Amino acid sequence: MTQRWVGILLFDNVEVLDFAGPFEVLSRARLTPGVDSRLTEDSAPFRVVTIAPSRDAIRAVGGLCVIPDYSIADAPAVDVLIVPGGVGTRALMRDDVALRWIRGVAKRATLVASVCTGALVLAQAGLLSGRRATTHWAAFDLLASLDSSVRVERGARVVDDGVVTSAGVSAGIDMAFLVVERFCGLAVAEETAHYIEYTRKNVPAAG
Amino acid sequence: MTQRWVGILLFDNVEVLDFAGPFEVLSRARLTPGVDSRLTEDSAPFRVVTIAPSRDAIRAVGGLCVIPDYSIADAPAVDVLIVPGGVGTRALMRDDVALRWIRGVAKRATLVASVCTGALVLAQAGLLSGRRATTHWAAFDLLASLDSSVRVERGARVVDDGVVTSAGVSAGIDMAFLVVERFCGLAVAEETAHYIEYTRKNVPAAG
Repeated sequence: MTQRWVGILLFDNVEVLDFAGPFEVLSRARLTPGVDSRLTEDSAPFRVVTIAPSRDAIRAVGGLCVIPDYSIADAPAVDVLIVPGGVGTRALMRDDVALRWIRGVAKRATLVASVCTGALVLAQAGLLSGRRATTHWAAFDLLASLDSSVRVERGARVVDDGVVTSAGVSAGIDMAFLVVERFCGLAVAEETAHYIEYTRKNVPAAG
Repeated sequence: MTQRWVGILLFDNVEVLDFAGPFEVLSRARLTPGVDSRLTEDSAPFRVVTIAPSRDAIRAVGGLCVIPDYSIADAPAVDVLIVPGGVGTRALMRDDVALRWIRGVAKRATLVASVCTGALVLAQAGLLSGRRATTHWAAFDLLASLDSSVRVERGARVVDDGVVTSAGVSAGIDMAFLVVERFCGLAVAEETAHYIEYTRKNVPAAG
């Protein structure tokens, strides 16, 4: 089994469920069904790590304090990059070092995905040009204003157009299941959903 | 407005979504609807803090590293105590200091709730005696074996019988919305669900 590395970007004022939902789904997926397989990493298709602009602890929205596994300066290569949202995306969009890092990772990664207003960061990095995309309902207009070539899909829960974007906050869970489905197939995605007692919503056809 | 304090217990090998789901819902609830009210704490009905056996960083399931706000030795009084699940509950059930703390908090709190196998910890602390309760589907028998007076509701998503328990992992989100509804009413719960783009599932009648 080839284990794929997933990097989840963290930053001050990242929305908690935006990163925790995909972290949960991708870190708990297993190719071997059942409860016992979750006790080891033996059949884990993903190795999920957190990456932040620096190694300092970040303070998420609501005050949750998280120590990232890596900084963008020392992060390993990842196959999947996930950019969550939150009010901290506004500062991140002005962080040229972080944007450059995101662009560089996107060139080498198999898949780039966002949750909620993480799409604003991807747009600012130029990664959504000419693509269909979505974001939190309160940020549709802002997303469109950042790059007029982005076709904003208002009302979609997950949009897969080369780069995968998802609607607000809890929609990141559905985005993550789409990632599991793409790399591991429907059965693994559904069994992982059963494990965390989640009913997937608005699942688009696999890209 | 009286702001209620919510303490979410953290411990090594706590399941990420078990604590992050309720953290998200309760920390993002607002009495004033809309996006702007989320930029301040002015209309936040809950002050959500994390509490762990010690002040050391905890390592959640999958490796997420979180610094708790308080240890059980220095935690403030809370109105609501939430005990998440995860494989780390097995060690927590043998931690007499933590169990004694949970019992003490439960005596003074307005509400005690669990997510997933957090119910095992509540049962071990004697807090589920004679009550209806639920847990992750893989732990139904274990919960029943800990206290034969617990009436395990297999298949319920959230059970409210004085102490509120919920099914596995993602069900903690629905439990948290029930808490919002109880203290702030249905409209606030529904507006918060709209904000995080979540459709509530199997909502029982408010207790």
